[in-house]
Amino acid sequence: MKITPRVKRILDNYESDNPGTKANLARMLMQGRLAGTGKLVILPVDQGFEHGPARSFAVNPAAYDPHYHFQLAIDAGLSAYASVLGMIEAGAGTFAGQIPLILKVNSANSLSTNKDQAVHGSVKDALRLGCAAIGFTIYPGSEDQYGMFEEIRAMGEEAKANGLAVVIWSYPRGGKLPKSGELAIDVSAYAAHMAAMLGAHIIKVKLPSDHVEQEDAKKSYEGIDTSTQAKRVEHVVQSCFAGRRIVVFSGGAAKGADDVFQDARDIRDGGGNGSIIGRNTFQRSREDALAMLDKLVAIYKGAE
Amino acid sequence: MKITPRVKRILDNYESDNPGTKANLARMLMQGRLAGTGKLVILPVDQGFEHGPARSFAVNPAAYDPHYHFQLAIDAGLSAYASVLGMIEAGAGTFAGQIPLILKVNSANSLSTNKDQAVHGSVKDALRLGCAAIGFTIYPGSEDQYGMFEEIRAMGEEAKANGLAVVIWSYPRGGKLPKSGELAIDVSAYAAHMAAMLGAHIIKVKLPSDHVEQEDAKKSYEGIDTSTQAKRVEHVVQSCFAGRRIVVFSGGAAKGADDVFQDARDIRDGGGNGSIIGRNTFQRSREDALAMLDKLVAIYKGAE
Amino acid sequence: MKITPRVKRILDNYESDNPGTKANLARMLMQGRLAGTGKLVILPVDQGFEHGPARSFAVNPAAYDPHYHFQLAIDAGLSAYASVLGMIEAGAGTFAGQIPLILKVNSANSLSTNKDQAVHGSVKDALRLGCAAIGFTIYPGSEDQYGMFEEIRAMGEEAKANGLAVVIWSYPRGGKLPKSGELAIDVSAYAAHMAAMLGAHIIKVKLPSDHVEQEDAKKSYEGIDTSTQAKRVEHVVQSCFAGRRIVVFSGGAAKGADDVFQDARDIRDGGGNGSIIGRNTFQRSREDALAMLDKLVAIYKGAE
Amino acid sequence: MKITPRVKRILDNYESDNPGTKANLARMLMQGRLAGTGKLVILPVDQGFEHGPARSFAVNPAAYDPHYHFQLAIDAGLSAYASVLGMIEAGAGTFAGQIPLILKVNSANSLSTNKDQAVHGSVKDALRLGCAAIGFTIYPGSEDQYGMFEEIRAMGEEAKANGLAVVIWSYPRGGKLPKSGELAIDVSAYAAHMAAMLGAHIIKVKLPSDHVEQEDAKKSYEGIDTSTQAKRVEHVVQSCFAGRRIVVFSGGAAKGADDVFQDARDIRDGGGNGSIIGRNTFQRSREDALAMLDKLVAIYKGAE
Amino acid sequence: MKITPRVKRILDNYESDNPGTKANLARMLMQGRLAGTGKLVILPVDQGFEHGPARSFAVNPAAYDPHYHFQLAIDAGLSAYASVLGMIEAGAGTFAGQIPLILKVNSANSLSTNKDQAVHGSVKDALRLGCAAIGFTIYPGSEDQYGMFEEIRAMGEEAKANGLAVVIWSYPRGGKLPKSGELAIDVSAYAAHMAAMLGAHIIKVKLPSDHVEQEDAKKSYEGIDTSTQAKRVEHVVQSCFAGRRIVVFSGGAAKGADDVFQDARDIRDGGGNGSIIGRNTFQRSREDALAMLDKLVAIYKGAE
Repeated sequence: MKITPRVKRILDNYESDNPGTKANLARMLMQGRLAGTGKLVILPVDQGFEHGPARSFAVNPAAYDPHYHFQLAIDAGLSAYASVLGMIEAGAGTFAGQIPLILKVNSANSLSTNKDQAVHGSVKDALRLGCAAIGFTIYPGSEDQYGMFEEIRAMGEEAKANGLAVVIWSYPRGGKLPKSGELAIDVSAYAAHMAAMLGAHIIKVKLPSDHVEQEDAKKSYEGIDTSTQAKRVEHVVQSCFAGRRIVVFSGGAAKGADDVFQDARDIRDGGGNGSIIGRNTFQRSREDALAMLDKLVAIYKGAE
Repeated sequence: MKITPRVKRILDNYESDNPGTKANLARMLMQGRLAGTGKLVILPVDQGFEHGPARSFAVNPAAYDPHYHFQLAIDAGLSAYASVLGMIEAGAGTFAGQIPLILKVNSANSLSTNKDQAVHGSVKDALRLGCAAIGFTIYPGSEDQYGMFEEIRAMGEEAKANGLAVVIWSYPRGGKLPKSGELAIDVSAYAAHMAAMLGAHIIKVKLPSDHVEQEDAKKSYEGIDTSTQAKRVEHVVQSCFAGRRIVVFSGGAAKGADDVFQDARDIRDGGGNGSIIGRNTFQRSREDALAMLDKLVAIYKGAE
Repeated sequence: MKITPRVKRILDNYESDNPGTKANLARMLMQGRLAGTGKLVILPVDQGFEHGPARSFAVNPAAYDPHYHFQLAIDAGLSAYASVLGMIEAGAGTFAGQIPLILKVNSANSLSTNKDQAVHGSVKDALRLGCAAIGFTIYPGSEDQYGMFEEIRAMGEEAKANGLAVVIWSYPRGGKLPKSGELAIDVSAYAAHMAAMLGAHIIKVKLPSDHVEQEDAKKSYEGIDTSTQAKRVEHVVQSCFAGRRIVVFSGGAAKGADDVFQDARDIRDGGGNGSIIGRNTFQRSREDALAMLDKLVAIYKGAE
Repeated sequence: MKITPRVKRILDNYESDNPGTKANLARMLMQGRLAGTGKLVILPVDQGFEHGPARSFAVNPAAYDPHYHFQLAIDAGLSAYASVLGMIEAGAGTFAGQIPLILKVNSANSLSTNKDQAVHGSVKDALRLGCAAIGFTIYPGSEDQYGMFEEIRAMGEEAKANGLAVVIWSYPRGGKLPKSGELAIDVSAYAAHMAAMLGAHIIKVKLPSDHVEQEDAKKSYEGIDTSTQAKRVEHVVQSCFAGRRIVVFSGGAAKGADDVFQDARDIRDGGGNGSIIGRNTFQRSREDALAMLDKLVAIYKGAE
Repeated sequence: MKITPRVKRILDNYESDNPGTKANLARMLMQGRLAGTGKLVILPVDQGFEHGPARSFAVNPAAYDPHYHFQLAIDAGLSAYASVLGMIEAGAGTFAGQIPLILKVNSANSLSTNKDQAVHGSVKDALRLGCAAIGFTIYPGSEDQYGMFEEIRAMGEEAKANGLAVVIWSYPRGGKLPKSGELAIDVSAYAAHMAAMLGAHIIKVKLPSDHVEQEDAKKSYEGIDTSTQAKRVEHVVQSCFAGRRIVVFSGGAAKGADDVFQDARDIRDGGGNGSIIGRNTFQRSREDALAMLDKLVAIYKGAE
């Protein structure tokens, strides 16, 4: 498989990484129907851990089976599949070599009493399961944020030394931050920048609103156009080393297909690298999900 | 000993495990009178630690002696015997090779002031004592749940690397969860799913009630039939990777023999893999316990 | 030195231990005037740490000198001498090979503000000082009990791997437990059982009262005779794996010689393995202490 | 490149360091336009982490790109460039060998809820990225100060053993210290002295005011002239082992160019070794920044 | 250098130590003008860390320079010089081999908010800097006392294994202990005894008052003469294994020369091994300090 010039330019931005890590980034960028475009659509399935199995899968019972998701990601021609230890273990053998895997190594759950996550996977797990990357969530602003930063510091160092890529989910919450500020453009761009500073290869944030939360940041945003979603994506991408890092956005809660498509167009137009889209796929029937992902891929190819 | 096709199918679900771990799962599945059926009845004796020796054994003083339990499990043709460090050390030599052992590596006690358990055994202990698996309890919902998840993460990784199996006892409690919600069907299925996500080979939960505890889960349960115990077992099994993981249920507090038998029929009919049954055996006389276990085995064989 | 059949039977109970640990248990059981009887009298001197030097030694100033205690234990023909790092270091060379040593590796002090102990010795220390065992105190019931259990888990594993024996002092206190319950028969038997469960070779508890503290345990104690001290000792011994573990009892605060002797007769008659007796010896003159220990040994030999 | 006598004298003060560390100190002292003078101007860019990307770079958008800062430091002929993991990784390959790098291994952020920093870089990171030094911030006075001291103790030991230099940013704050005391001359000198005591090779503090904060220190300051900024710099330098350690001062918040130049003259006249100047450079246009740095260099050369 | 019989007797008390540690004890006992007498005068300079540089050195500005203290200790013929990492690093090369060094590995500071110390030096540091011993402070009674005991346990084990000596500064404070009790004779003797129990080779405490603080200890002190300072020293020495451990006393705050001399006579007459004297030397002019130390040495030689 020959790397395209666009992918080559992206890889060149990771100038301090070893060939192992670059090869794993390339595996994701050269996988599926978006191979070579510099765009990524990733299927994440950790919602069972975060919200419980029935809330995640009852609407589409086939999705209780871990194999379902591997197969969906492969058949839809996606770039990678991300899930947690047990779920990856349950399919990594059957689907070995068919799609790059991201081992999500920490999770929260809806019974929890604090703004933290439990680390339940390791770099060694990722290696023995043939994964291309580890995924880790940070909660900037949380009372536990520094602990989370120190966990990913250690795991990121180990991942990079072993030729894996590092994906950071950066979700501001907790501490002094009101619920209303979690999606604010200043907070989102800050969260994305922190993930970049922490050494992430791929940064995942939510699509931001045009609210500015921090008093001290208001003046700086006077000259920044955040009036459209595409402009806000552009600002987040700029905040990740002026585009030197891959930035993908989450689909959020299940919603109408048209909204999903519009989000993707905005991500594309703002220069984002793609989507991580879970509930909006596996909570539809396989047929509907494939149709939606087909269109999503087309959007990222610039065809819609 | 030749593996039956049914056991082979079960082992195939553990597709990311090394031959050592598969062999230890096979040892339990091919042991005793349920050998080859895919069903398990396991004798656990950690109640002395959890409730004190007199509350556990005064009713049947022969049970103060660790050898009693090894012998009971062997004579009843059970699948495995589970206990904690001191009790396993006291019999592992005498009964070496006669029954698979599960070293339960953490415990609570009735004097404790929090919802946590102390880790008092290790993978190295399990290996030197010839055990087939480690057993670990998590308390989903507890303030200490993430700490417990991180403990089993590390111990599970070490156990798997050394060819042992991992059994997780998943008992929701503490934090925001009221006592009334601990056995709720949504919470139980969630707890079982978390254990699966954490990489357990065998998951142990309590038999759930048909109450739905979490407000956010109520809508999802509208279309799920939880009216009978067998249906609830079925839902829990589905929540464990659509049946790709072994799920066993606990017998709970000592109760009438008929209730014990009905529970087993429900577990069997719902597709569960068996029972972990402690107090309901060793708190009866040896004779009564053997008779009860004889009938339990017959139920799992489909004969009653 | 030939092991007696009685000692052989005791050693056989430690069926999971390596020859190194068995040899160290044998060293204690074959030492001094009780050699071969299966009984032990151990001299512990950690009171200076626990209560201060003047409160411990002012009444018998010769006892300020660490050598005094080594010599006393040797001259009285005792089974072992237990103390903490500094005090063992101060005499281990001079008395090397003359009496088995137990390195007490944690301690509290009378200035402390919590129910915990500080770990101040290590397995490596015990090995370089030629000790036969480590000694460790747990406080079942304390808010810190799980931390203490996890400390002895790690140290016990290391001790056993290096051929040392493990002695656990089990003193219930703190948390939900009122002062009045610390010596209750149910709590004492539970504490002894926990020590056994944690893998202790030798368990040390205080002589229990006939009070039953835990509401949930009262029913179980209806059929247990705890009316005499010997009967209570018997119940504690039974709670330690039906006599498969060595159980010794502490002498408590300094008291009249007759009480000390009666305690010993009760321990003996209840099937206990002996006494750990500190303040009642070194807070008497050497002459008086030797006389008292002489009689104590005679009692355990069944002569008084 | 031949070391000047002035640099030789400075290096001789590091009499306990290995040749690797001395060589890295020399790299900084012999770099750029101040090479050989014993003076240093260092460009630090961690403000994105500390305050967010827009507050740091919106005023000069070219500065979103990590390469911008490497190039600015090189073109201005500065002594070293300091930044955090992600930002260094994004340029260390392109600019390898062109300017000494300081990996800042901990950071705070403006969302945080305590007076601490997260460690997000390691000595291993610094080595693989070709850095000359690690940078670490302590907050003397903070409730977390001892934890921070213990972190730099471990990292400093590892850095020195691997031939790296150690730069400590010492910023008093938190605990009993009022906001008004953070820049007090007694507190600043104390903070600098603590950094020296902790083994820093290069100490960075803020320019102090002439307020004396601590009641107990007032008498000692009666005989010390702190009336001018140059005198205060002199006292801080004296407090760092009578000038045996390199001391640099931070530029503080963005301000007028004349103030920046006057600060530099005071630092120079008080015997300080130079400036760490971030926001006052990259928050100006590249042209203005280069002009300002040109003049700064001239001041340290004694020409202005 | 031939060891004197008196020093030989002292070394013999360290019967469990390896030749490396004994040699380092001997280096201190055979150094300077008190060589061979069994007495020690040690210069400690950590006051800059504890109280700040101006409060420590402004009265004698030459003392800002680390070399000043090395030279003072050498010229006065003292037994050892103790200081913290940065200060030792700043002179260990120049004065290598001229005076035994004690690396003080933990410190408090006057900005701190708790009764603990930060560990800022290591055994590895002590070894690479050519030190004879590590020094460590414990605060018996503090809420953090057990943490401190566990730190010195680990560091002491490592120090001894590497042939270093261990000096423990034992300063009761915090927790239940009122300020008025910190110097009480019972508390001081207890603190000294704890240091001995923790395995210290050299114990440093403050000169005690004749107040008895602990209610439970009052009875024990009825028969102990604590009416004179010499008698109190004698009791502290007795509390350190009846004189089997070296005990030195601190000079406390700067005071009149006559008081310093009287203290030394009392220490000598009570059987103490000497003084650790800091502020009373370096806060005088070098001339005055040398004169005072000259007389101090004479007192310990028994000449005054």
